[in-house]
Amino acid sequence: MTGSLTVVGLGPGPDRWLTPEVAEVLAQATDLVGYGPYLDRIPQGTHRRHGSDNRVELSRARLALDLAAAGCRVALVSGGDPGVFAMASALFEALESGDNPAWTDVPVRVCPGVSAMLAAAARVGAPLGHDFCVLSLSDNLKPWELVLKRLRLAAEADFVIALYNPISKARPWQLGAALDSLRTLKAPTTPVVLARAVGRVDEDVTITTLADCDPAAADMRTLVLIGSSQTRLLPKGTQGDVWVYTPRGYAPLAAEADAP
Amino acid sequence: MTGSLTVVGLGPGPDRWLTPEVAEVLAQATDLVGYGPYLDRIPQGTHRRHGSDNRVELSRARLALDLAAAGCRVALVSGGDPGVFAMASALFEALESGDNPAWTDVPVRVCPGVSAMLAAAARVGAPLGHDFCVLSLSDNLKPWELVLKRLRLAAEADFVIALYNPISKARPWQLGAALDSLRTLKAPTTPVVLARAVGRVDEDVTITTLADCDPAAADMRTLVLIGSSQTRLLPKGTQGDVWVYTPRGYAPLAAEADAP
Repeated sequence: MTGSLTVVGLGPGPDRWLTPEVAEVLAQATDLVGYGPYLDRIPQGTHRRHGSDNRVELSRARLALDLAAAGCRVALVSGGDPGVFAMASALFEALESGDNPAWTDVPVRVCPGVSAMLAAAARVGAPLGHDFCVLSLSDNLKPWELVLKRLRLAAEADFVIALYNPISKARPWQLGAALDSLRTLKAPTTPVVLARAVGRVDEDVTITTLADCDPAAADMRTLVLIGSSQTRLLPKGTQGDVWVYTPRGYAPLAAEADAP
Repeated sequence: MTGSLTVVGLGPGPDRWLTPEVAEVLAQATDLVGYGPYLDRIPQGTHRRHGSDNRVELSRARLALDLAAAGCRVALVSGGDPGVFAMASALFEALESGDNPAWTDVPVRVCPGVSAMLAAAARVGAPLGHDFCVLSLSDNLKPWELVLKRLRLAAEADFVIALYNPISKARPWQLGAALDSLRTLKAPTTPVVLARAVGRVDEDVTITTLADCDPAAADMRTLVLIGSSQTRLLPKGTQGDVWVYTPRGYAPLAAEADAP
């Protein structure tokens, strides 16, 4: 048997966001490697499961490569999309380290998925409808000064901002510090969305403002969206609640665009 | 019958990237509204098709709202994800204009999809594995000076940059101007990916550098990815070609991260 390694994303929530491509990879796999709670979302099958703890991406990637080099059909499983703050980069880091010469011959493939930011955006409307940036607030692998610099430049560029990894037990103050920094740069009325576990049974979505946003309302499963100067709220009418969206144009709405 | 309006994305390419949620919406819809070439990707069914030309997003959104207000189950169709430079924002702009009071009562829902940038990234490795930004190069709805300002700030922030709408018949020079601007700000060896029609039969992916990138190699179906200072190439070994990826950390690779 020839081994292979496919990096897949389950989408952020339910099976209805899991692509047919990824469903097929999972059905064909002999071995599933990933963070335990993600593997728990995959129905039992004939495959072997290699669940691991959080914060061990590189060793998880090495295990997946070892299994594939030994002839297994391995699916390396992320939530959301595997290419956005997830396992695909960790895999290539492991490959580049070249710890095992046999890894070179493993056929590798990456399958895209619905990312958490896209699901969160769809849930509240279209906040990512114009130019935006995407940052991880984790300072485990980059200096905090770089995070602050990027937030400052993102505010100056007037990007909509999506924040991954806003907070965790080991990083309790970073989101508060990031919001404080942005409060000196952006209007207090700027819409902010805290989208926790979108699509899951324990989904919890809060629409607030930069002035009022309480970082304690976020946890490690929350995706934070912070509007640009153009992002606006639109009442849902008889459905209650509001939409959050960013228009396609900058300043007064023009006639028609050409984005296909 | 009670009408409804669901904004969906088909994913950038083949059916294997179309989510089960969107497949069900399309199966239930009485009316499909969208840019003609996107509707052409949906198999014939009992629904009515309302294909339209490019560059008429607002009138397309109004038609979808009118049909839903009249009792139709309407799917408003984008390629990729509907929330990224696509129909969701146009819909909320139309809704906010409030041209027809009956629109207020239409139940609206947005379903996320696999976006073109995620598919392009997966195709070449993991270039979006660290902080990145996403810009439309179209200056139809924003001043070109704003595009240049955002590119400058994105380079200063050292974001990976994803460019939508890089070029069209009506906008032939913008990509060349953007690349020229970035050449004054970033290393000539910065990896650049031109990912055209990823997942389609006419897919064409070029991996080059900022110094060598020829804007004439892009067209309106091309997604352009420009690396950060950390983005690197990794030979595929016996499979030939190279991967493009951005490590999770900044500067020397550290031990383990905590992004779930």
